[in-house]
Amino acid sequence: MSTPRAYSVKAYAAGGAKEPLAPASISRREPTDHDVQIEILYCGVCHSDIHFARNEWGFTQYPAVPGHEIVGRIKKVGPKVTKFKEGDLAGIGCMVGADLACPQCRAGNEQYSPGMIGTYMATEPVIGGPTFGGYSENIIAHEHFALRIPENLDLAAVAPLLCAGITTYSPLRHWKVGPGRKVGIVGLGGLGHMAVKFARAFGAHVVVFTTSPSKKEDARRLGAHEIIVSSNAGEMKAHAGTFDFILDCVSAQHDIGAYLAMLAVDGNITLVGAPEKPLPVAAFSLIMGRKSLSGSMIGGIRETQEMLDFCGEHGITADIEMIRMDQINEAYERMLRSDVKYRFVIDMKSLR
Amino acid sequence: MSTPRAYSVKAYAAGGAKEPLAPASISRREPTDHDVQIEILYCGVCHSDIHFARNEWGFTQYPAVPGHEIVGRIKKVGPKVTKFKEGDLAGIGCMVGADLACPQCRAGNEQYSPGMIGTYMATEPVIGGPTFGGYSENIIAHEHFALRIPENLDLAAVAPLLCAGITTYSPLRHWKVGPGRKVGIVGLGGLGHMAVKFARAFGAHVVVFTTSPSKKEDARRLGAHEIIVSSNAGEMKAHAGTFDFILDCVSAQHDIGAYLAMLAVDGNITLVGAPEKPLPVAAFSLIMGRKSLSGSMIGGIRETQEMLDFCGEHGITADIEMIRMDQINEAYERMLRSDVKYRFVIDMKSLR
Repeated sequence: MSTPRAYSVKAYAAGGAKEPLAPASISRREPTDHDVQIEILYCGVCHSDIHFARNEWGFTQYPAVPGHEIVGRIKKVGPKVTKFKEGDLAGIGCMVGADLACPQCRAGNEQYSPGMIGTYMATEPVIGGPTFGGYSENIIAHEHFALRIPENLDLAAVAPLLCAGITTYSPLRHWKVGPGRKVGIVGLGGLGHMAVKFARAFGAHVVVFTTSPSKKEDARRLGAHEIIVSSNAGEMKAHAGTFDFILDCVSAQHDIGAYLAMLAVDGNITLVGAPEKPLPVAAFSLIMGRKSLSGSMIGGIRETQEMLDFCGEHGITADIEMIRMDQINEAYERMLRSDVKYRFVIDMKSLR
Repeated sequence: MSTPRAYSVKAYAAGGAKEPLAPASISRREPTDHDVQIEILYCGVCHSDIHFARNEWGFTQYPAVPGHEIVGRIKKVGPKVTKFKEGDLAGIGCMVGADLACPQCRAGNEQYSPGMIGTYMATEPVIGGPTFGGYSENIIAHEHFALRIPENLDLAAVAPLLCAGITTYSPLRHWKVGPGRKVGIVGLGGLGHMAVKFARAFGAHVVVFTTSPSKKEDARRLGAHEIIVSSNAGEMKAHAGTFDFILDCVSAQHDIGAYLAMLAVDGNITLVGAPEKPLPVAAFSLIMGRKSLSGSMIGGIRETQEMLDFCGEHGITADIEMIRMDQINEAYERMLRSDVKYRFVIDMKSLR
């Protein structure tokens, strides 16, 4: 068997948990039969990028190249690729591969497949070593994991749809958010602001829970019908027991019991943020009203394409602030202070 | 307005949180228009009876008469009653009234109605004072809350169906347990043993989780296809990620994370037992696989009737041990040691 061919790519990488990101050179495989090579034009900056770069989940191999909100143009296609041709726009989210044969893959839930290969924090299946994310010149993936991008949208503002978009779209669809349903969105950040846009577009009555009264106006602009300041006991009490669904986008520790009390009978809270420590859940807070607490992780490829097509039809993109590649460390610090409206996107020309 | 008429009834009551149950006399209202008066023949003993008698939930008014698994015969009916006539068998579960007008009542979820009146631990709406449960000669309820009892079943063994039965039947139905579904039952006590019978009757593949290897044989006899000793890490690991639904019938503190790990993608755990302290739930244990943790409380009246009819058709009753009324304090102590297979039922003739 011949050695798989690899080539060098410019990237931005962390060399260790305590090190800032800096220019680096990484190896990628040449496209195999079903692979596409995508020249990266824009890459969104997800909070997971920080956890990963700093090894806060404990699984990071270095050099660590974050980035899983990727849009660009197809540069090369493998001989068996049918979905794309050179010059097409394409996107990559949190996955670059999976077995495509297991029950989860067959059901369109590649994100829950035991064989799923992450865009970063996984092992490169052909040339070995870690997979490298989108803070780089280009990326390789099986065509199944490359998404078609609507031509009518601002390409930079599409990038965050590949993670923040699908992460919120998928549970809102799964739990049938639509007309006649009262929906709460907890936390108005990168995920939350997309959730508001989608829930509004789906026809629900949308209520934002926020700790910052200063975000009220922005929440309305994004599509919220009502805003509840979660530290205001009176506002919380007035809405107790009335929500059909709440999407909880908060990664920091918070009182989940306060939100379970907001649910109506048969209501559901779905977590898409992951606080570090376990959340204390009182059994009675679920039993009294047949309530549910769930979690959801990104979405499958079929649903991600559906989401992008929906965004094309409805003119939905993320609210972004563009940065250069060399501003990434400063951007991380600002994200940790919640000082971004609502997603940083790296203009990848700045890497070249 | 004339004073509503009341009459005296023999009962067994706790006079305080630290006092044993003892003979007492209580007042009940005379049947109003839609009321039925039921002579109580058998009353099951639920773990909630102990919490209530000992004020472990903090809402008990004394004298406290427990008992909400009640079967007997109609003795009197109010002038507008159409559902029953004197001499009919009838049952009362955890509810004796509700507004019958709110959205929950109209949807058949009287148990979640803000106007629900508990068989005990509520306020008597006509003559005032606390409502009194089934450890008594007779009971009054709006006919809507009296259930028809299949004539073909052992009446004493029907009593526990009114709480333990519907508490397990309802979530198994709600979560669509049936053929092709792998279902776990945690805890083989009063609730758990009914859950095994129902899940088996619904056609699911039934697995019992137990801490007691000694219960294996009994679990099989009740209908389990497989038994997992939950303290055996190897047995647990072999089933990880494979359950569609788990009904958690345990009221003691236990590691909910261990059971979330047992769920397949889109799996659900529903709690029907209520541990005293909040359960710590790791967000990732829900997010990785879109899993859900829910709660469920008894069931509505329509569904309770459906459950009783199902039991009549399938010959399902509880496994019981009959006691006299004056053995109730000893029975409580045995229940606290899990020394009952699987439900005590009081022969109410022993009160007369």
